[in-house]
Amino acid sequence: MKILSKLMIIVKVGGGKKIRWNYILSDLKKIIDKGQQVVVVHGASETRDEIALKMGYPTKTVTSPSGVSSVFTDQMALDIFLMSYCGLTNKKIVAQMQGVGINAVGLSGIDGNMWQAKAKPNLIVKEDGKTKFVRGNLSGRVEKVEPKLIFLLLKNGFVPVLSAPALSFESKIVNTDNDWATAVMAGALGAKSITYLFEAPGLLRDFNEPKSKIDKIDQKLLKENMKFAKGRMKKKLLGAGKALDLGVSKIFFGDGRIKNPISKALKGGGTVIL
Amino acid sequence: MKILSKLMIIVKVGGGKKIRWNYILSDLKKIIDKGQQVVVVHGASETRDEIALKMGYPTKTVTSPSGVSSVFTDQMALDIFLMSYCGLTNKKIVAQMQGVGINAVGLSGIDGNMWQAKAKPNLIVKEDGKTKFVRGNLSGRVEKVEPKLIFLLLKNGFVPVLSAPALSFESKIVNTDNDWATAVMAGALGAKSITYLFEAPGLLRDFNEPKSKIDKIDQKLLKENMKFAKGRMKKKLLGAGKALDLGVSKIFFGDGRIKNPISKALKGGGTVIL
Repeated sequence: MKILSKLMIIVKVGGGKKIRWNYILSDLKKIIDKGQQVVVVHGASETRDEIALKMGYPTKTVTSPSGVSSVFTDQMALDIFLMSYCGLTNKKIVAQMQGVGINAVGLSGIDGNMWQAKAKPNLIVKEDGKTKFVRGNLSGRVEKVEPKLIFLLLKNGFVPVLSAPALSFESKIVNTDNDWATAVMAGALGAKSITYLFEAPGLLRDFNEPKSKIDKIDQKLLKENMKFAKGRMKKKLLGAGKALDLGVSKIFFGDGRIKNPISKALKGGGTVIL
Repeated sequence: MKILSKLMIIVKVGGGKKIRWNYILSDLKKIIDKGQQVVVVHGASETRDEIALKMGYPTKTVTSPSGVSSVFTDQMALDIFLMSYCGLTNKKIVAQMQGVGINAVGLSGIDGNMWQAKAKPNLIVKEDGKTKFVRGNLSGRVEKVEPKLIFLLLKNGFVPVLSAPALSFESKIVNTDNDWATAVMAGALGAKSITYLFEAPGLLRDFNEPKSKIDKIDQKLLKENMKFAKGRMKKKLLGAGKALDLGVSKIFFGDGRIKNPISKALKGGGTVIL
């Protein structure tokens, strides 16, 4: 079935509230109608944070010694994650897709044992300049992706719409970084490209200056460009690097707030990493 | 692909907290290992009510003039429904199944446009002895089921695990009665039987007396037996009647709190309707 993947692209959409899903879906519909196979991965971080607040259990963020921030996931945070990503957000995207004639199937990394992660119960975090050891974290890093279910759905005309969490090698649900998991999945699927859409025109040299967009990055210079990435953008760059290592040819960063966001990103309108 | 369905059974598990999923899943694993194809449908009503309370938006129930109670679903109630059924409950069941070696795929009626419902925005309800008209209800009744996705998954060794909501004919998410939808789906799949598991030994003549269990009901006498059904049990009897009308041979009611609950129900240990 690997032959399919020559046509396949992955679109990863961030979880910000300024993302315009109506623009994304009308662009996606045109792209799919041309015969392109697409796998969609979505975030839901802002919705998750809103629900966490309503539940009286605000999201806790920790920062690694290298400066990458992640969510600390205990059982309650994991429950809220499932509710907001797999419940509220995933199913609303699927319904909206069905509404524009895309035959979407909403899944998580757990379904079909697709996203297999190494649990990472202990975290080393930096807090107030000090390095600390934190236990009981229900998250992990995706190391292996089982692509059978995705291939099956694509081959039969369905559009898979996925998000974290993943399943640990011990079959426990673990929160996981969507961007990294998308990269590992792209490798397993033999995808041609990943397009990461978010709330910026691309990777910016100056976070506050949209005109400072970097148009193109050579894979060899990814590390040097890491200094321009703020917050969650670091994870997208790490994901991009991983995907390129796994044989994906091109990574596109693009603006998820504009019309035809996928087509524009694929034409190099954002940042291209290759 | 219809030939598959000769082997297929549906197991519908209620959303009560006394249901023992570990018993259900070890029984299910044995049944699947014998070559039986199974589709699982689950509820999550108690989890939904708990989350609704935590969100400060308790579940509102209305009663029809004929005495059948349902949930009134506005946008907030629908969001909480998605969170608790499709997010929290569905994914936890899928992970537990993966843990016992069942390759589960968690879905809702929205995915693959499977459960197609006629929206029912206006309800006639009975309140304090008076009949009232209530608008703005985001629910509907499943009238058509598209079985393609289920057949595809079963044929390829996956076990579909489903719950409401459904998609209206206008592609809007609508809350829907799981028991009724299961019946319509059983018809579309050509399933051999439906087993409804809940927190009772079967249909009881006297709600408070487990020994008053009715062992067998002839389809022709379903209406006469409706008087024994309290609350949500009425919906299971309505579902049973619909499924039999659609060609399903047997409906089994069984206790979801005991060991080997499916096998026991299939041997007539609860209530059999045929």
